[in-house]
Amino acid sequence: MPNDVYTELCSLKREAATLSSVAHLLGWDQETYMPSGGTAARAEQSSLLAGLIHERETSARLGELIAACEEDAGVQGDPEKAANVREMRRDYDKATKLPGELVKELANVGSRAQDAWKAARKANDFKAFEPWLEKMVGLSRRKAECYGVPDGGELYDALMDDYEADARAKDIEAVFTPLREKLSVLVKDLLDNGTAPDMGPRKVHVPEAQQHAFGLRVIEQMGFDLKTGRLDTTTHPFCEGLAPGDTRLTTRYDEDYFMGALYGTMHEAGHGVYEQGLPKVGDDGEPSAVYGTPLADSRSLGIHESQSRGWENFVGRSRAFWEWAKPVADGYFGDGFKKYSADDVFRAANVVERSYIRVEADEATYNLHVMLRFGLERAMIAGDLAIKDLPGEWNSRFKDMLGVEVPDDARGCLQDVHWSFGLIGYFPTYTLGNLYAAQFFEAIREETPDLDDRIAKGDMSAVLDWSRKHVHLLGRRYTAAEMCEKATGKALSAEPLLRHLEGKLRGVYGV
Amino acid sequence: MPNDVYTELCSLKREAATLSSVAHLLGWDQETYMPSGGTAARAEQSSLLAGLIHERETSARLGELIAACEEDAGVQGDPEKAANVREMRRDYDKATKLPGELVKELANVGSRAQDAWKAARKANDFKAFEPWLEKMVGLSRRKAECYGVPDGGELYDALMDDYEADARAKDIEAVFTPLREKLSVLVKDLLDNGTAPDMGPRKVHVPEAQQHAFGLRVIEQMGFDLKTGRLDTTTHPFCEGLAPGDTRLTTRYDEDYFMGALYGTMHEAGHGVYEQGLPKVGDDGEPSAVYGTPLADSRSLGIHESQSRGWENFVGRSRAFWEWAKPVADGYFGDGFKKYSADDVFRAANVVERSYIRVEADEATYNLHVMLRFGLERAMIAGDLAIKDLPGEWNSRFKDMLGVEVPDDARGCLQDVHWSFGLIGYFPTYTLGNLYAAQFFEAIREETPDLDDRIAKGDMSAVLDWSRKHVHLLGRRYTAAEMCEKATGKALSAEPLLRHLEGKLRGVYGV
Repeated sequence: MPNDVYTELCSLKREAATLSSVAHLLGWDQETYMPSGGTAARAEQSSLLAGLIHERETSARLGELIAACEEDAGVQGDPEKAANVREMRRDYDKATKLPGELVKELANVGSRAQDAWKAARKANDFKAFEPWLEKMVGLSRRKAECYGVPDGGELYDALMDDYEADARAKDIEAVFTPLREKLSVLVKDLLDNGTAPDMGPRKVHVPEAQQHAFGLRVIEQMGFDLKTGRLDTTTHPFCEGLAPGDTRLTTRYDEDYFMGALYGTMHEAGHGVYEQGLPKVGDDGEPSAVYGTPLADSRSLGIHESQSRGWENFVGRSRAFWEWAKPVADGYFGDGFKKYSADDVFRAANVVERSYIRVEADEATYNLHVMLRFGLERAMIAGDLAIKDLPGEWNSRFKDMLGVEVPDDARGCLQDVHWSFGLIGYFPTYTLGNLYAAQFFEAIREETPDLDDRIAKGDMSAVLDWSRKHVHLLGRRYTAAEMCEKATGKALSAEPLLRHLEGKLRGVYGV
Repeated sequence: MPNDVYTELCSLKREAATLSSVAHLLGWDQETYMPSGGTAARAEQSSLLAGLIHERETSARLGELIAACEEDAGVQGDPEKAANVREMRRDYDKATKLPGELVKELANVGSRAQDAWKAARKANDFKAFEPWLEKMVGLSRRKAECYGVPDGGELYDALMDDYEADARAKDIEAVFTPLREKLSVLVKDLLDNGTAPDMGPRKVHVPEAQQHAFGLRVIEQMGFDLKTGRLDTTTHPFCEGLAPGDTRLTTRYDEDYFMGALYGTMHEAGHGVYEQGLPKVGDDGEPSAVYGTPLADSRSLGIHESQSRGWENFVGRSRAFWEWAKPVADGYFGDGFKKYSADDVFRAANVVERSYIRVEADEATYNLHVMLRFGLERAMIAGDLAIKDLPGEWNSRFKDMLGVEVPDDARGCLQDVHWSFGLIGYFPTYTLGNLYAAQFFEAIREETPDLDDRIAKGDMSAVLDWSRKHVHLLGRRYTAAEMCEKATGKALSAEPLLRHLEGKLRGVYGV
């Protein structure tokens, strides 16, 4: 019977996914509630689970079943199943291509390099970090060679593929180049010729409990289901699509900067509604038949980020959002906030600044920070940039881009943790997310021309419904590029994001 | 090399224990933070983990290694290792003696019987529950037969062995008989001839946050380490010795009855300090070499309960405790509480009542409730009591014991969940805990004659230190009876508990 191999294949994947969901609970718990004394035992639990998952993801039987499904006319004649098997092949090949010794070395050196990075950043001492970065770039290159250079691509693409499957650096660069040039001009124009908004509404003091209650109110309005999800507090906010029917968000609070938590929460809830919308749960509340297979999995980090950035920036930082949210927030934030208008708050949420630190950057300059890193890491992997020359190159590109001098490496090339543990090829997904979000929102607006009026009344269903249909429910059925083309009728380009930022920010700054 | 088999044995056990610790996290999370939508996926995770654990606990290799260690002179010449292997044999035999089909049937019928019990209790309809209880008693008998009647024992002992290893019902009855008789007399005397304490201090309104803060203060004073533990809120309080360095307590709050949470928290923290004191963690904070083996495991439910009841009743319900705790609580509980003296609170904490419900019973009558159940379940397993006769027998024994008529089965033989899912042989461990606690506290007092003065100053280290040495650090090295004999110089008897209750309660009631 042709479907027997497919059924067995899905059930093996489901077992691995179930173990993986348990591993994610270990991770979530470690960040939220685990007492500090549990660290060593947690490492032992996690490592045991990782081993059991790896065994399943690389088992010979899994390989046989994938191969059998690739030859099976019944499976290949069903487009959903064929897509599922295509993606399982991709995962299996990746999981089996890296020698165990390299995986261990990456983990081991990565953990030590991360410690070295922490110390180096604190001491503002790039030289202390340089040998570790050298090692991690070398190991990453070996990893990329094991994967193999993908068709029409370069070594860097093999690394990027872990985060953004099928993407090619040269295609990304073709979109990033006009974005970089026009954003630099926009930022210069805003800051040199425009009028900055009043920062007052950003600085209202709001107790943590009020911020938390308002955050819950907002994410429910977005459509995040609190019966199948929750919101906790951690040092580093994240979203964990932990298991079918169980999606967990975290955020952090600064009582003198409520927008930090609010936009952080909306961002994670954007990830969260994607996880809740993936077809992981059946109508009966049980894990669905495709749970554990690529059809129930998120497409890529760029697509994931399009959901979080979409809600954070395209909804949350819009004038329409504050028309709804301002009177609601008044009920939580007290008199110091009440005196401002919705427009004051909208404008304050769209302040643009020349800052050195990516994670503190605004909606416009953020992409400049990301594209800087993309260019530099791509050059390091290609061997076109020696590690020792990184600080100089960083600082000079930064000056070209934002017009200011980087004061020191701690606020320059030492600021991010990513490279220290081998996250190379990850950065571009942040800006890809913004680009996809912009293109998706143009499509949403085309389908729902009165989107702003609806959002101003608190009705955000047009955003959620469109996203469910064109993104969430598809899992990994299509590549990200195909999904974008199908959903918006066009290949990804810089234009929608530029139109969005130009339109909104020139209005705010009056230029 | 003689120790190779022992090392491999311990490492297999450790892997099973690590998986089991992950399963416990799944359970803890389900009771505390999991969103309700995660229930179905959680069942799938738990069942997958249970299967992996069962495979390991019943593997042929494990059996071979145990057998090899039993023959190994090097292992048998080391008393600690020999004890460890003895206990592993016990666990292995139990795990392999039950046919898989019976395990499944127990789980399946148990789950349906539990639903039936809920409905029957609500409807006060014993007849509706009777066929289910019949089934569960029958299945339990089959389970006991698979285990086999232990030396010098009866069928019931085989069931009890799951909770209280090596215990024999006839030995327990020999201790319970004088306890039952003398407690009945004591309770009658207190309630008919004594003067009940003022209930005022029990009824002070204390907001949940204040109760929680005070609870944390008290358990830290007991020696519960919050760096390796935590306290959360659940419907049904419990303690989970989750992993090395990670012990989690839960409690629940009633703002108009702070003693419920306080004594519940002390009770769970008593279990908690036992878990924290077991040799699961090395000096370096890593899981110890014996982690995962019986030497790092708690002895039995009765011994566990001796720790929780010890702190709850022998410390927490003492006059000395309130001499320390009253001024501390004043800082949390407000003016409504301040007006009472330490003695008022001590007396209010020792009210004795003729109640129908075990879980609401006081320190004295609680044991009567437990002994009633022990006698009845023992008779049901022996076949001396037909299930249909349970309500009549319950009610008549209750009348003899407490002198009041049971008004209905909901407040009689239908009140506890235990029997519905096959927890038979579990009840006696509650009173065994009180008996051990009493005997242990006499030994502590002998070693530290000024115990009360110390506790009145907040110094509870004598209790913790004695327990660490004579109980916690021993794991399962000795049987519970041996441990009691070594620690106190005497076999378990009813006398210490009777002396404790007579001494304290006659004082409070003035008779």
